[in-house]
Amino acid sequence: MFYQSQDLDAIGVVTDLYAEGWKSEIGRADFPALAPDARFKPSRASKEAFATDTLTADVKTEQEKLLWADALILQFPLWWYSMPAILKGWVDRVYAYGFAYGVGEHSDKYWGRRFGEGTLAGKRAMLVVTTGGWEEHYSPRGVNGPIDDLLFPINHGILFYPGYDVLPPFVAYRVDSLDDAGFQATAEQLKERMHTLATTAPIPYRRQNGGDYAIPTLELRPEVGDPRINGFALHLSGAHRGETALR
Amino acid sequence: MFYQSQDLDAIGVVTDLYAEGWKSEIGRADFPALAPDARFKPSRASKEAFATDTLTADVKTEQEKLLWADALILQFPLWWYSMPAILKGWVDRVYAYGFAYGVGEHSDKYWGRRFGEGTLAGKRAMLVVTTGGWEEHYSPRGVNGPIDDLLFPINHGILFYPGYDVLPPFVAYRVDSLDDAGFQATAEQLKERMHTLATTAPIPYRRQNGGDYAIPTLELRPEVGDPRINGFALHLSGAHRGETALR
Repeated sequence: MFYQSQDLDAIGVVTDLYAEGWKSEIGRADFPALAPDARFKPSRASKEAFATDTLTADVKTEQEKLLWADALILQFPLWWYSMPAILKGWVDRVYAYGFAYGVGEHSDKYWGRRFGEGTLAGKRAMLVVTTGGWEEHYSPRGVNGPIDDLLFPINHGILFYPGYDVLPPFVAYRVDSLDDAGFQATAEQLKERMHTLATTAPIPYRRQNGGDYAIPTLELRPEVGDPRINGFALHLSGAHRGETALR
Repeated sequence: MFYQSQDLDAIGVVTDLYAEGWKSEIGRADFPALAPDARFKPSRASKEAFATDTLTADVKTEQEKLLWADALILQFPLWWYSMPAILKGWVDRVYAYGFAYGVGEHSDKYWGRRFGEGTLAGKRAMLVVTTGGWEEHYSPRGVNGPIDDLLFPINHGILFYPGYDVLPPFVAYRVDSLDDAGFQATAEQLKERMHTLATTAPIPYRRQNGGDYAIPTLELRPEVGDPRINGFALHLSGAHRGETALR
Protein backbone atom coordinates (compact mmCIF):
# COMPACT_ATOMS: atom_id res chain seq x y z
CA MET A 1 0.00 0.00 0.00
CA PHE A 2 1.00 3.55 -0.44
CA TYR A 3 0.66 6.37 2.03
CA GLN A 4 0.62 9.88 0.72
CA SER A 5 0.89 13.09 2.68
CA GLN A 6 0.49 16.84 2.32
CA ASP A 7 1.21 17.92 -1.22
CA LEU A 8 -0.36 14.95 -2.91
CA ASP A 9 2.03 15.18 -5.80
CA ALA A 10 5.04 14.91 -3.63
CA ILE A 11 5.95 12.83 -0.65
CA GLY A 12 4.89 9.25 -0.10
CA VAL A 13 5.72 6.14 1.91
CA VAL A 14 5.33 2.61 0.56
CA THR A 15 4.67 -0.42 2.72
CA ASP A 16 5.39 -3.67 0.89
CA LEU A 17 3.78 -6.28 3.12
CA TYR A 18 5.63 -9.20 1.53
CA ALA A 19 8.99 -7.47 1.67
CA GLU A 20 8.40 -6.65 5.33
CA GLY A 21 7.43 -10.20 6.19
CA TRP A 22 4.11 -8.94 7.51
CA LYS A 23 2.36 -11.42 9.82
CA SER A 24 -0.99 -12.09 8.21
CA GLU A 25 -3.22 -13.64 10.84
CA ILE A 26 -4.36 -12.02 14.05
CA GLY A 27 -3.70 -14.18 17.08
CA ARG A 28 -2.65 -14.24 20.72
CA ALA A 29 0.86 -13.14 19.80
CA ASP A 30 -0.58 -9.78 18.79
CA PHE A 31 -1.47 -9.06 22.40
CA PRO A 32 1.61 -9.59 24.56
CA ALA A 33 -0.21 -8.15 27.59
CA LEU A 34 -2.94 -10.81 27.40
CA ALA A 35 -2.64 -13.28 30.28
CA PRO A 36 -1.65 -16.74 29.03
CA ASP A 37 -4.69 -18.34 30.65
CA ALA A 38 -7.17 -15.66 29.55
CA ARG A 39 -9.71 -16.57 26.92
CA PHE A 40 -8.74 -14.91 23.66
CA LYS A 41 -11.50 -12.69 22.33
CA PRO A 42 -9.90 -10.67 19.54
CA SER A 43 -12.02 -7.51 19.81
CA ARG A 44 -11.69 -7.34 23.60
CA ALA A 45 -7.95 -7.99 23.42
CA SER A 46 -7.64 -5.36 20.72
CA LYS A 47 -9.54 -2.81 22.81
CA GLU A 48 -7.35 -3.37 25.85
CA ALA A 49 -4.14 -3.35 23.90
CA PHE A 50 -5.00 -0.14 22.08
CA ALA A 51 -6.11 1.57 25.29
CA THR A 52 -2.95 0.56 27.13
CA ASP A 53 -0.62 1.12 24.17
CA THR A 54 0.50 -2.50 24.17
CA LEU A 55 -0.12 -3.33 20.55
CA THR A 56 2.88 -4.81 18.75
CA ALA A 57 5.42 -2.50 17.13
CA ASP A 58 4.55 -3.50 13.55
CA VAL A 59 0.90 -2.60 14.12
CA LYS A 60 1.70 0.68 15.84
CA THR A 61 4.00 1.68 13.00
CA GLU A 62 1.22 1.15 10.48
CA GLN A 63 -1.26 3.12 12.59
CA GLU A 64 1.20 6.00 12.78
CA LYS A 65 1.52 6.00 9.01
CA LEU A 66 -2.25 6.10 8.66
CA LEU A 67 -2.45 9.06 11.04
CA TRP A 68 0.35 10.85 9.22
CA ALA A 69 -0.84 10.39 5.66
CA ASP A 70 -3.41 12.49 3.87
CA ALA A 71 -4.21 9.67 1.49
CA LEU A 72 -4.03 5.89 1.57
CA ILE A 73 -3.79 3.69 -1.49
CA LEU A 74 -4.27 -0.05 -1.20
CA GLN A 75 -2.80 -1.74 -4.24
CA PHE A 76 -3.44 -5.44 -4.76
CA PRO A 77 -4.37 -8.15 -7.24
CA LEU A 78 -7.97 -9.30 -6.92
CA TRP A 79 -7.74 -12.90 -5.72
CA TRP A 80 -10.97 -14.81 -5.33
CA TYR A 81 -12.94 -11.58 -5.59
CA SER A 82 -11.22 -9.94 -2.62
CA MET A 83 -7.83 -8.88 -1.36
CA PRO A 84 -4.94 -11.32 -0.78
CA ALA A 85 -4.76 -12.84 2.69
CA ILE A 86 -1.69 -10.82 3.69
CA LEU A 87 -3.53 -7.54 3.05
CA LYS A 88 -6.67 -8.76 4.83
CA GLY A 89 -4.36 -9.50 7.73
CA TRP A 90 -3.06 -5.96 7.62
CA VAL A 91 -6.66 -4.80 8.04
CA ASP A 92 -7.51 -7.34 10.73
CA ARG A 93 -4.45 -6.39 12.78
CA VAL A 94 -3.96 -2.66 12.18
CA TYR A 95 -7.65 -1.77 12.47
CA ALA A 96 -7.70 -2.00 16.26
CA TYR A 97 -10.70 -1.45 18.52
CA GLY A 98 -10.55 2.20 19.54
CA PHE A 99 -8.58 3.07 16.43
CA ALA A 100 -10.71 1.98 13.47
CA TYR A 101 -13.82 0.71 15.25
CA GLY A 102 -15.37 1.13 18.67
CA VAL A 103 -14.75 4.88 18.26
CA GLY A 104 -17.17 7.29 19.95
CA GLU A 105 -20.32 6.71 21.95
CA HIS A 106 -22.21 3.46 21.35
CA SER A 107 -25.77 3.59 22.63
CA ASP A 108 -29.34 3.28 21.44
CA LYS A 109 -29.06 6.94 20.38
CA TYR A 110 -25.67 6.95 18.69
CA TRP A 111 -23.85 4.08 17.11
CA GLY A 112 -20.28 5.22 17.08
CA ARG A 113 -18.29 7.45 14.81
CA ARG A 114 -18.08 5.35 11.68
CA PHE A 115 -19.14 5.27 8.04
CA GLY A 116 -18.04 8.77 7.21
CA GLU A 117 -16.64 9.71 10.61
CA GLY A 118 -13.89 8.39 12.80
CA THR A 119 -10.16 8.39 13.33
CA LEU A 120 -9.30 8.76 9.66
CA ALA A 121 -11.92 11.34 8.69
CA GLY A 122 -10.67 14.12 6.44
CA LYS A 123 -8.30 11.78 4.62
CA ARG A 124 -8.70 10.13 1.25
CA ALA A 125 -8.34 6.52 0.19
CA MET A 126 -8.32 4.70 -3.12
CA LEU A 127 -8.00 1.12 -4.29
CA VAL A 128 -5.68 0.20 -7.13
CA VAL A 129 -6.69 -3.26 -8.26
CA THR A 130 -5.47 -5.62 -10.95
CA THR A 131 -7.40 -8.55 -12.34
CA GLY A 132 -6.69 -11.45 -14.65
CA GLY A 133 -10.25 -11.47 -15.98
CA TRP A 134 -11.89 -9.25 -18.58
CA GLU A 135 -13.61 -5.99 -17.79
CA GLU A 136 -16.85 -7.40 -19.26
CA HIS A 137 -16.80 -10.20 -16.69
CA TYR A 138 -16.98 -7.52 -13.98
CA SER A 139 -19.53 -5.35 -15.73
CA PRO A 140 -23.03 -4.66 -14.34
CA ARG A 141 -24.29 -7.92 -15.89
CA GLY A 142 -21.00 -9.86 -15.91
CA VAL A 143 -20.70 -13.30 -14.36
CA ASN A 144 -18.39 -12.21 -11.54
CA GLY A 145 -20.74 -9.51 -10.35
CA PRO A 146 -20.18 -5.76 -10.86
CA ILE A 147 -16.73 -4.61 -9.80
CA ASP A 148 -18.25 -1.79 -7.71
CA ASP A 149 -20.26 -4.33 -5.73
CA LEU A 150 -17.33 -6.71 -5.33
CA LEU A 151 -15.25 -3.86 -3.94
CA PHE A 152 -18.05 -2.46 -1.74
CA PRO A 153 -17.09 -4.51 1.33
CA ILE A 154 -13.63 -2.92 1.06
CA ASN A 155 -14.50 0.59 -0.09
CA HIS A 156 -17.45 1.01 2.23
CA GLY A 157 -16.75 -1.52 4.98
CA ILE A 158 -12.99 -0.98 5.40
CA LEU A 159 -12.22 2.50 4.06
CA PHE A 160 -15.39 4.56 4.58
CA TYR A 161 -15.95 2.89 7.96
CA PRO A 162 -13.13 4.65 9.85
CA GLY A 163 -13.77 7.92 8.05
CA TYR A 164 -11.96 7.97 4.73
CA ASP A 165 -13.36 9.76 1.73
CA VAL A 166 -13.19 6.91 -0.76
CA LEU A 167 -12.30 7.66 -4.35
CA PRO A 168 -13.54 5.54 -7.24
CA PRO A 169 -11.15 2.62 -7.61
CA PHE A 170 -8.55 2.32 -10.33
CA VAL A 171 -8.96 -1.14 -11.84
CA ALA A 172 -6.67 -2.60 -14.48
CA TYR A 173 -8.09 -5.69 -16.17
CA ARG A 174 -6.32 -8.61 -17.90
CA VAL A 175 -2.96 -7.48 -16.63
CA ASP A 176 -1.35 -10.83 -17.40
CA SER A 177 -2.03 -10.15 -21.07
CA LEU A 178 -0.79 -6.54 -21.20
CA ASP A 179 1.78 -5.82 -23.87
CA ASP A 180 4.19 -2.89 -23.59
CA ALA A 181 1.76 -0.44 -25.14
CA GLY A 182 -1.03 -1.61 -22.86
CA PHE A 183 1.22 -1.29 -19.86
CA GLN A 184 2.22 2.25 -20.82
CA ALA A 185 -1.39 3.27 -21.36
CA THR A 186 -2.40 1.83 -18.00
CA ALA A 187 0.52 3.56 -16.30
CA GLU A 188 -0.53 6.89 -17.83
CA GLN A 189 -4.09 6.44 -16.60
CA LEU A 190 -2.87 5.64 -13.12
CA LYS A 191 -0.53 8.62 -13.16
CA GLU A 192 -3.51 10.82 -14.00
CA ARG A 193 -5.42 9.37 -11.07
CA MET A 194 -2.47 10.09 -8.79
CA HIS A 195 -2.27 13.68 -10.00
CA THR A 196 -5.95 14.19 -9.30
CA LEU A 197 -5.97 12.39 -5.96
CA ALA A 198 -6.76 15.58 -4.07
CA THR A 199 -9.54 16.74 -6.39
CA THR A 200 -11.37 13.63 -7.61
CA ALA A 201 -14.90 13.44 -6.22
CA PRO A 202 -15.29 10.66 -3.64
CA ILE A 203 -17.90 7.93 -3.92
CA PRO A 204 -20.99 9.56 -2.35
CA TYR A 205 -21.66 7.00 0.36
CA ARG A 206 -24.33 8.00 2.84
CA ARG A 207 -22.99 8.96 6.27
CA GLN A 208 -24.24 6.77 9.09
CA ASN A 209 -24.95 9.78 11.28
CA GLY A 210 -26.17 12.04 8.50
CA GLY A 211 -29.87 11.38 9.00
CA ASP A 212 -30.55 8.72 6.35
CA TYR A 213 -30.39 5.82 8.81
CA ALA A 214 -32.65 5.07 11.76
CA ILE A 215 -30.80 4.46 15.02
CA PRO A 216 -30.17 1.89 16.48
CA THR A 217 -31.38 -0.42 13.72
CA LEU A 218 -29.21 1.46 11.22
CA GLU A 219 -31.63 0.76 8.42
CA LEU A 220 -32.31 3.36 5.77
CA ARG A 221 -35.40 5.32 6.68
CA PRO A 222 -38.41 4.31 4.55
CA GLU A 223 -38.36 7.50 2.51
CA VAL A 224 -34.67 7.19 1.63
CA GLY A 225 -33.45 5.64 -1.59
CA ASP A 226 -34.72 5.02 -5.07
CA PRO A 227 -37.22 2.14 -4.99
CA ARG A 228 -35.79 0.86 -8.27
CA ILE A 229 -32.53 0.04 -6.51
CA ASN A 230 -31.56 -2.91 -4.35
CA GLY A 231 -28.37 -4.06 -2.71
CA PHE A 232 -25.24 -2.04 -2.01
CA ALA A 233 -26.16 0.77 -4.38
CA LEU A 234 -28.79 1.93 -1.87
CA HIS A 235 -25.96 3.31 0.25
CA LEU A 236 -24.96 5.87 -2.35
CA SER A 237 -26.66 9.20 -1.97
CA GLY A 238 -28.89 10.63 -4.66
CA ALA A 239 -26.93 12.53 -7.23
CA HIS A 240 -24.58 9.85 -8.46
CA ARG A 241 -26.62 6.84 -7.56
CA GLY A 242 -28.01 6.13 -10.98
CA GLU A 243 -24.62 6.16 -12.61
CA THR A 244 -23.31 3.35 -10.50
CA ALA A 245 -26.39 1.25 -10.05
CA LEU A 246 -28.39 1.50 -13.21
CA ARG A 247 -26.00 2.29 -16.00
CA MET B 1 -13.80 -25.48 8.53
CA PHE B 2 -15.62 -28.75 8.57
CA TYR B 3 -15.53 -31.46 5.95
CA GLN B 4 -18.38 -33.89 5.87
CA SER B 5 -18.59 -37.12 3.88
CA GLN B 6 -21.05 -39.77 2.79
CA ASP B 7 -23.80 -40.14 5.34
CA LEU B 8 -24.09 -36.46 6.14
CA ASP B 9 -25.22 -37.19 9.68
CA ALA B 10 -22.17 -39.19 10.46
CA ILE B 11 -18.52 -38.80 9.73
CA GLY B 12 -16.68 -35.52 9.57
CA VAL B 13 -13.22 -34.01 9.68
CA VAL B 14 -12.42 -30.65 11.24
CA THR B 15 -9.54 -28.45 10.17
CA ASP B 16 -8.72 -25.77 12.74
CA LEU B 17 -6.44 -23.43 10.84
CA TYR B 18 -5.14 -21.69 13.95
CA ALA B 19 -4.47 -24.95 15.79
CA GLU B 20 -2.61 -26.25 12.75
CA GLY B 21 -0.51 -23.12 12.45
CA TRP B 22 -1.73 -22.65 8.90
CA LYS B 23 0.47 -20.36 6.81
CA SER B 24 -1.80 -17.55 5.66
CA GLU B 25 -0.13 -15.84 2.77
CA ILE B 26 0.77 -17.35 -0.55
CA GLY B 27 4.39 -16.80 -1.52
CA ARG B 28 7.45 -18.29 -3.14
CA ALA B 29 7.78 -20.83 -0.35
CA ASP B 30 4.60 -22.45 -1.60
CA PHE B 31 6.36 -23.48 -4.78
CA PRO B 32 9.55 -25.30 -3.89
CA ALA B 33 10.09 -26.27 -7.53
CA LEU B 34 10.19 -22.63 -8.64
CA ALA B 35 13.70 -21.60 -9.68
CA PRO B 36 15.14 -19.06 -7.22
CA ASP B 37 15.79 -16.56 -10.01
CA ALA B 38 12.43 -17.03 -11.75
CA ARG B 39 9.92 -14.23 -11.58
CA PHE B 40 7.16 -15.20 -9.18
CA LYS B 41 3.77 -15.12 -10.86
CA PRO B 42 1.42 -16.85 -8.44
CA SER B 43 -1.06 -18.27 -10.94
CA ARG B 44 1.65 -19.59 -13.23
CA ALA B 45 3.57 -21.08 -10.31
CA SER B 46 0.37 -22.62 -9.02
CA LYS B 47 -0.41 -24.16 -12.42
CA GLU B 48 3.05 -25.70 -12.72
CA ALA B 49 3.09 -26.97 -9.15
CA PHE B 50 -0.33 -28.57 -9.45
CA ALA B 51 0.50 -30.17 -12.79
CA THR B 52 3.78 -31.58 -11.49
CA ASP B 53 2.43 -32.51 -8.07
CA THR B 54 4.91 -30.25 -6.30
CA LEU B 55 2.52 -28.27 -4.12
CA THR B 56 3.40 -28.27 -0.44
CA ALA B 57 2.13 -31.05 1.80
CA ASP B 58 -0.25 -28.84 3.79
CA VAL B 59 -1.97 -27.71 0.62
CA LYS B 60 -2.18 -31.22 -0.85
CA THR B 61 -3.70 -32.51 2.39
CA GLU B 62 -6.44 -29.90 2.21
CA GLN B 63 -7.14 -30.66 -1.44
CA GLU B 64 -7.48 -34.36 -0.60
CA LYS B 65 -10.00 -33.52 2.10
CA LEU B 66 -12.01 -31.45 -0.36
CA LEU B 67 -12.02 -34.32 -2.86
CA TRP B 68 -13.04 -36.80 -0.16
CA ALA B 69 -15.81 -34.80 1.47
CA ASP B 70 -19.40 -34.60 0.24
CA ALA B 71 -19.91 -31.30 2.01
CA LEU B 72 -17.69 -28.41 3.08
CA ILE B 73 -18.56 -25.98 5.83
CA LEU B 74 -16.52 -22.83 6.30
CA GLN B 75 -17.08 -21.45 9.80
CA PHE B 76 -15.71 -18.05 10.66
CA PRO B 77 -16.41 -14.72 12.35
CA LEU B 78 -17.18 -11.93 9.91
CA TRP B 79 -14.25 -9.52 10.24
CA TRP B 80 -14.39 -6.36 8.20
CA TYR B 81 -17.22 -7.77 6.13
CA SER B 82 -15.24 -10.79 4.96
CA MET B 83 -13.40 -13.83 6.24
CA PRO B 84 -10.37 -13.62 8.55
CA ALA B 85 -7.00 -13.44 6.82
CA ILE B 86 -6.03 -16.98 7.79
CA LEU B 87 -9.08 -18.42 6.04
CA LYS B 88 -8.57 -16.22 3.00
CA GLY B 89 -5.08 -17.64 2.93
CA TRP B 90 -6.53 -21.14 2.96
CA VAL B 91 -8.47 -20.21 -0.17
CA ASP B 92 -5.56 -18.45 -1.85
CA ARG B 93 -3.25 -21.42 -1.29
CA VAL B 94 -5.50 -24.49 -1.55
CA TYR B 95 -7.43 -23.27 -4.59
CA ALA B 96 -4.65 -24.05 -7.03
CA TYR B 97 -4.69 -23.47 -10.78
CA GLY B 98 -5.91 -26.71 -12.33
CA PHE B 99 -7.70 -27.65 -9.13
CA ALA B 100 -10.15 -24.82 -8.41
CA TYR B 101 -9.59 -22.60 -11.42
CA GLY B 102 -8.12 -22.98 -14.86
CA VAL B 103 -10.16 -26.19 -15.16
CA GLY B 104 -11.38 -27.22 -18.61
CA GLU B 105 -11.06 -25.58 -22.01
CA HIS B 106 -10.56 -21.81 -22.08
CA SER B 107 -11.31 -20.30 -25.46
CA ASP B 108 -13.59 -17.80 -27.14
CA LYS B 109 -16.20 -20.58 -27.23
CA TYR B 110 -15.88 -21.99 -23.72
CA TRP B 111 -14.61 -20.27 -20.61
CA GLY B 112 -13.66 -23.12 -18.39
CA ARG B 113 -15.59 -25.38 -16.10
CA ARG B 114 -16.58 -23.01 -13.35
CA PHE B 115 -19.57 -21.37 -11.68
CA GLY B 116 -21.57 -24.54 -11.27
CA GLU B 117 -19.08 -26.96 -12.79
CA GLY B 118 -15.56 -27.99 -11.91
CA THR B 119 -13.51 -30.17 -9.65
CA LEU B 120 -15.91 -29.97 -6.73
CA ALA B 121 -19.20 -30.33 -8.62
CA GLY B 122 -21.74 -32.62 -7.02
CA LYS B 123 -20.68 -31.57 -3.53
CA ARG B 124 -22.35 -29.13 -1.17
CA ALA B 125 -20.95 -26.18 0.76
CA MET B 126 -22.30 -23.86 3.44
CA LEU B 127 -21.02 -20.89 5.37
CA VAL B 128 -21.48 -20.68 9.14
CA VAL B 129 -20.84 -17.07 10.07
CA THR B 130 -20.91 -15.14 13.33
CA THR B 131 -21.17 -11.38 13.65
CA GLY B 132 -20.89 -8.86 16.44
CA GLY B 133 -23.44 -6.54 14.84
CA TRP B 134 -27.20 -6.73 14.77
CA GLU B 135 -29.22 -8.59 12.16
CA GLU B 136 -30.93 -5.30 11.20
CA HIS B 137 -27.56 -3.80 10.31
CA TYR B 138 -27.18 -6.55 7.69
CA SER B 139 -30.77 -6.41 6.45
CA PRO B 140 -31.71 -5.43 2.87
CA ARG B 141 -31.59 -1.72 3.88
CA GLY B 142 -29.09 -1.98 6.73
CA VAL B 143 -25.97 0.18 6.84
CA ASN B 144 -23.54 -2.69 6.35
CA GLY B 145 -25.22 -3.88 3.20
CA PRO B 146 -27.38 -7.02 2.92
CA ILE B 147 -25.70 -10.10 4.34
CA ASP B 148 -26.44 -12.07 1.15
CA ASP B 149 -24.58 -9.48 -0.88
CA LEU B 150 -21.66 -9.29 1.56
CA LEU B 151 -21.30 -13.07 1.35
CA PHE B 152 -21.77 -13.23 -2.44
CA PRO B 153 -18.05 -12.95 -3.22
CA ILE B 154 -17.54 -16.04 -1.03
CA ASN B 155 -20.67 -18.05 -1.83
CA HIS B 156 -20.58 -17.37 -5.54
CA GLY B 157 -16.95 -16.47 -6.14
CA ILE B 158 -15.25 -19.08 -3.94
CA LEU B 159 -17.77 -21.91 -3.44
CA PHE B 160 -19.94 -21.94 -6.57
CA TYR B 161 -16.90 -21.22 -8.73
CA PRO B 162 -15.26 -24.66 -8.44
CA GLY B 163 -18.61 -26.40 -8.61
CA TYR B 164 -20.17 -26.57 -5.15
CA ASP B 165 -23.90 -26.43 -4.67
CA VAL B 166 -24.01 -23.59 -2.14
CA LEU B 167 -26.58 -23.71 0.63
CA PRO B 168 -28.01 -20.58 2.22
CA PRO B 169 -25.60 -19.46 4.94
CA PHE B 170 -26.19 -19.93 8.63
CA VAL B 171 -25.55 -16.57 10.25
CA ALA B 172 -25.59 -15.95 14.00
CA TYR B 173 -25.73 -12.26 14.91
CA ARG B 174 -24.60 -10.44 18.07
CA VAL B 175 -22.78 -13.51 19.31
CA ASP B 176 -20.77 -11.53 21.85
CA SER B 177 -24.05 -10.74 23.61
CA LEU B 178 -25.54 -14.24 23.61
CA ASP B 179 -26.67 -15.51 27.00
CA ASP B 180 -27.00 -19.22 27.73
CA ALA B 181 -30.52 -19.43 26.38
CA GLY B 182 -29.53 -17.59 23.22
CA PHE B 183 -26.55 -19.87 22.75
CA GLN B 184 -28.72 -22.97 23.14
CA ALA B 185 -31.27 -21.65 20.68
CA THR B 186 -28.57 -20.86 18.14
CA ALA B 187 -27.02 -24.29 18.64
CA GLU B 188 -30.37 -25.95 18.00
CA GLN B 189 -30.86 -23.97 14.81
CA LEU B 190 -27.41 -24.93 13.59
CA LYS B 191 -28.04 -28.57 14.48
CA GLU B 192 -31.16 -28.48 12.33
CA ARG B 193 -29.15 -27.06 9.44
CA MET B 194 -26.62 -29.86 9.86
CA HIS B 195 -29.35 -32.47 9.83
CA THR B 196 -30.79 -31.05 6.64
CA LEU B 197 -27.44 -30.50 4.91
CA ALA B 198 -28.21 -33.10 2.27
CA THR B 199 -31.73 -31.90 1.51
CA THR B 200 -31.71 -28.10 1.83
CA ALA B 201 -32.21 -26.41 -1.52
CA PRO B 202 -29.05 -24.65 -2.75
CA ILE B 203 -28.92 -20.99 -3.68
CA PRO B 204 -30.09 -21.03 -7.32
CA TYR B 205 -27.08 -19.34 -8.90
CA ARG B 206 -27.07 -19.33 -12.66
CA ARG B 207 -24.55 -21.73 -14.22
CA GLN B 208 -21.93 -20.06 -16.38
CA ASN B 209 -22.34 -22.65 -19.12
CA GLY B 210 -26.09 -23.04 -18.76
CA GLY B 211 -27.04 -20.62 -21.52
CA ASP B 212 -27.77 -17.43 -19.55
CA TYR B 213 -24.36 -15.87 -20.26
CA ALA B 214 -22.90 -14.85 -23.59
CA ILE B 215 -19.43 -16.22 -24.28
CA PRO B 216 -16.72 -14.95 -24.10
CA THR B 217 -17.94 -11.70 -22.52
CA LEU B 218 -19.75 -13.72 -19.85
CA GLU B 219 -22.44 -11.08 -19.55
CA LEU B 220 -26.03 -12.08 -18.99
CA ARG B 221 -27.88 -12.19 -22.30
CA PRO B 222 -30.17 -9.19 -22.77
CA GLU B 223 -33.34 -11.20 -22.26
CA VAL B 224 -32.13 -12.72 -18.96
CA GLY B 225 -33.00 -11.27 -15.58
CA ASP B 226 -35.70 -9.18 -14.01
CA PRO B 227 -35.20 -5.55 -15.11
CA ARG B 228 -36.17 -4.44 -11.60
CA ILE B 229 -33.02 -6.05 -10.21
CA ASN B 230 -29.44 -4.80 -10.15
CA GLY B 231 -26.22 -6.08 -8.66
CA PHE B 232 -25.42 -9.58 -7.45
CA ALA B 233 -29.06 -10.67 -7.31
CA LEU B 234 -29.09 -10.82 -11.11
CA HIS B 235 -27.08 -14.03 -10.87
CA LEU B 236 -29.87 -15.93 -9.14
CA SER B 237 -32.18 -17.75 -11.50
CA GLY B 238 -35.87 -16.99 -11.68
CA ALA B 239 -37.80 -18.93 -9.12
CA HIS B 240 -36.17 -17.66 -5.96
CA ARG B 241 -34.83 -14.40 -7.23
CA GLY B 242 -37.50 -12.17 -5.75
CA GLU B 243 -37.11 -13.59 -2.28
CA THR B 244 -33.51 -12.66 -2.00
CA ALA B 245 -33.40 -9.45 -3.91
CA LEU B 246 -36.66 -7.66 -3.33
CA ARG B 247 -38.02 -8.87 -0.02
